[in-house]
Amino acid sequence: MRNAFQEELDSIHDTLVKMGKLVEDSMSEATKALLQPNLELAEKVIKNDDVIDDMQHELDARTMMIIARQSPVAGDLRTLVTSLRMSADLERMGDMAHHIAKLARMRYPATAVPPELLLTVQEMGRVAGKIAEKATGIIKSRDTEDAKSLEKDDDEMDILHRKLFATLLDDKWTHGIETAIDMTLIGRYYERFADHAVSISRRVYFLVTGQYYSEES
Amino acid sequence: MRNAFQEELDSIHDTLVKMGKLVEDSMSEATKALLQPNLELAEKVIKNDDVIDDMQHELDARTMMIIARQSPVAGDLRTLVTSLRMSADLERMGDMAHHIAKLARMRYPATAVPPELLLTVQEMGRVAGKIAEKATGIIKSRDTEDAKSLEKDDDEMDILHRKLFATLLDDKWTHGIETAIDMTLIGRYYERFADHAVSISRRVYFLVTGQYYSEES
Repeated sequence: MRNAFQEELDSIHDTLVKMGKLVEDSMSEATKALLQPNLELAEKVIKNDDVIDDMQHELDARTMMIIARQSPVAGDLRTLVTSLRMSADLERMGDMAHHIAKLARMRYPATAVPPELLLTVQEMGRVAGKIAEKATGIIKSRDTEDAKSLEKDDDEMDILHRKLFATLLDDKWTHGIETAIDMTLIGRYYERFADHAVSISRRVYFLVTGQYYSEES
Repeated sequence: MRNAFQEELDSIHDTLVKMGKLVEDSMSEATKALLQPNLELAEKVIKNDDVIDDMQHELDARTMMIIARQSPVAGDLRTLVTSLRMSADLERMGDMAHHIAKLARMRYPATAVPPELLLTVQEMGRVAGKIAEKATGIIKSRDTEDAKSLEKDDDEMDILHRKLFATLLDDKWTHGIETAIDMTLIGRYYERFADHAVSISRRVYFLVTGQYYSEES
């Protein structure tokens, strides 16, 4: 029979997965808000960030209480500590979606993204969505192969990020400094979003195997 | 007589203060590395970031073990949880210094900062130094008045950040897109550095008073 402690651990696990899905939706909507552009969607993502933040606060408080009350050892303690770190990563991923939505709102009804970068940003959004979905799946399944493979998706994001800079620095760039500033920040938000997902996959890998598969960033 | 538990709490507190001082030095050296420019100093800051990261990992592991072993209640638990959050803020502040140093190294022997922004960046560095010193002092003293006053220093940083953007967007800007990209990122690093210090001061304020003095960011 399952005991109350195990149920508490499961409930934390479920909340993390739920948080991952919210973050995934937020980023996908932020990308849409930016590219269409869509003010209503931008506002929705901005509001949704509070929900994600509250979720993290509540989850962390709950996790700390369990650690303090149950005095878990070894594996269980490691699981709980990893949960705390993953919730922080997810919260930061939510922040990145929030930043993108705020930029979309600031430039509305214009779009922050110039025509020659639409495809690159669309691709960054697509990769971000794939990465967030995978990270949520890894939290859920603790599959170490999936965890390792996320690194490749992050490489894809890095290539897109470099492509974005190359476009900004090209002699043909005619959109001036303000758009270059916007695109620099937007590029960074997507890249950081992916970095935090990689961090989650590394934490899961370590939790399961007790080993790092590469340097922790 | 002081007991072992109290000694453990004090030791965590001391490590946080030590971490704060390291972060303060890192940012001050990163600013110098950027403005002089100075490659050796940039390398030093980049290496120093590993020390700060290790310190956070060690501190967090120690804090978690205390929570699990001692089952602290109410005030002590709140202190320990706040320590975890502050160490994460300090670690992120260290990251910002690290990012600035990496940009200084990338552009060396040129300087990333054009003449008309030297003073603004110098000021941002000075305010960042003041803020880091104050945040460390607040961690040490838990002075709630100091904690509230940090908000004003952050306003100073925001003004400088806006001034930096105004210079980039001025018609007189002649340094092209690459320098604008560098300055956008540098501006963001200083601003985020200050934001994390504000976050520390808010945590201390809440720890001492049980109340927020304003919205948590």
